[in-house]
Amino acid sequence: MRVFVDCDPGIDDALALAYLAADSSVEIVGVGTVYGNSSVETTTDNAVRLLRLFDRPDVPVAAGAARPLVQQPRLAAHVHGTNGLGGIELPAVEAATVSESAAEVLVRLARSAPGEISVLALGPLTNLALALALEPRLPQLVDRVVVMGGAVRAPGNVTPWAEANVNNDPEAAEAVLGAGFNLTLVALDVTMRALATEPWLEELAGLASERASYAHRFLTYYLDWYTEFLGRRACPMHDPLAAAVLLDPALVTESVTVPVQVELTGTYTRGMTVADLRTRPEAGSRDPVVLPTEVDVPEFLSRMLRALA
Amino acid sequence: MRVFVDCDPGIDDALALAYLAADSSVEIVGVGTVYGNSSVETTTDNAVRLLRLFDRPDVPVAAGAARPLVQQPRLAAHVHGTNGLGGIELPAVEAATVSESAAEVLVRLARSAPGEISVLALGPLTNLALALALEPRLPQLVDRVVVMGGAVRAPGNVTPWAEANVNNDPEAAEAVLGAGFNLTLVALDVTMRALATEPWLEELAGLASERASYAHRFLTYYLDWYTEFLGRRACPMHDPLAAAVLLDPALVTESVTVPVQVELTGTYTRGMTVADLRTRPEAGSRDPVVLPTEVDVPEFLSRMLRALA
Repeated sequence: MRVFVDCDPGIDDALALAYLAADSSVEIVGVGTVYGNSSVETTTDNAVRLLRLFDRPDVPVAAGAARPLVQQPRLAAHVHGTNGLGGIELPAVEAATVSESAAEVLVRLARSAPGEISVLALGPLTNLALALALEPRLPQLVDRVVVMGGAVRAPGNVTPWAEANVNNDPEAAEAVLGAGFNLTLVALDVTMRALATEPWLEELAGLASERASYAHRFLTYYLDWYTEFLGRRACPMHDPLAAAVLLDPALVTESVTVPVQVELTGTYTRGMTVADLRTRPEAGSRDPVVLPTEVDVPEFLSRMLRALA
Repeated sequence: MRVFVDCDPGIDDALALAYLAADSSVEIVGVGTVYGNSSVETTTDNAVRLLRLFDRPDVPVAAGAARPLVQQPRLAAHVHGTNGLGGIELPAVEAATVSESAAEVLVRLARSAPGEISVLALGPLTNLALALALEPRLPQLVDRVVVMGGAVRAPGNVTPWAEANVNNDPEAAEAVLGAGFNLTLVALDVTMRALATEPWLEELAGLASERASYAHRFLTYYLDWYTEFLGRRACPMHDPLAAAVLLDPALVTESVTVPVQVELTGTYTRGMTVADLRTRPEAGSRDPVVLPTEVDVPEFLSRMLRALA
């Protein structure tokens, strides 16, 4: 499988990269970066360092958007630390980013291998929206797109109704979700149930690898923040779950296939992902996306451990 | 218990009136009517006829609002028939409505017996919003308010996200939900699970009373519409469930107490009732309301049958 990863590492982005990198059948054809969990300068630097850590030093990294299409950026240093990785310093490496922007790289790769590239989007959807503006045939040129984002039946995480990646650039998300991609939206509906708990973290701590040791340190920072948010000692594995669903759709045990729209104008609900979940929905005018509603969490967590071993 | 009922009969409103009227401990101090399931002229005429059918001919009926505060009215003849009662004709009675509007009657009653009157609101909330504008102390002057309306975690019924009563007058609903009433919102979250099914309707058909016979005829009409909507032969008992919850809060087996707001400006979500359902919600600036999330449906349906016997 050939995968382009768009991300904003980010602690859970780091785990998702580890998950992909551990699978020898996966070719990571490129990594685009975007503001979100931290500034794009920081997420780009982190992406380069993480790919070295995970033994994929040759993957081209393209810095992408520094800000959303319309609104002002809001970063998440309170969740991921000021360096985006919980204050844990990875070894510095020579900057090896390409000169093109992330959107240009994605468009070039998709045109050069129609139908072959899958996209894993783990941050605000600004780069994907830009790529779509550059190349309107993108939905036909790529294979599958898996997006970590949105909250349909679940509460939001940055507002009561909105999830961070979508809320960071609602206009971009609306463009991407309406574009006709073969798209799976891995939303808070499932990621908030894919929880790393303390027993799991103890298993992780027992692994001998360098990547497991870093993952444990990242997640310990992340857990402290989420303990406050969740009211229990656990943290959701948002981005790695999306990576796992891309590599193996069978991890999704229940889903609905519905058009998903992004509210752009609500006083309370701007940034909310909305879908017609009535028993008999009206025929929608836009293509539906796959919204997983149940995933095999134990199997996913067990695979995550194996990826870090 | 002294109850003021604001309603738009309406098939399920009729059942709710039957439920209240069957309880000899309930004094129905007044009935206000409102556009909604049908025009206010029709719902008023129906209210008068229904109270006669249910042996409460002396309850004063006050016609209320003919249209929402801001938007144009949208009636529901496709659900309740053009006469609001599935085309079933009740015996005509002398018009006996009072000269005051529903909002005036509610305010007068509340002022005359502070803390004693409970309100059951079964239609668009226009009359309650008008009463609140006439008397801002209304939340302190009435006892409990039970509203059938809204859809918080459940899908809507008139848009994918909005329930009919709230969507019929979102501005009124926003005023009422934010006013600080001791308020229980009986939303689609529970009413869509309080289903009258065919075996239950057969039991109803077996009852000898005139009211049971009418109820069966109303519900047969209603069921045909809902069968299309639900994809199975059943119909939700929206308004009677709200009546039952007013008379016995113990029917609610699980609830959350949260501020509920009404989205007024969304492109998709206008008319949606939104609540912060995160594990750790932010402190809200408005008073919370009780949102039942589980009710004892078998017990409710059994009580409904007894009320019609």
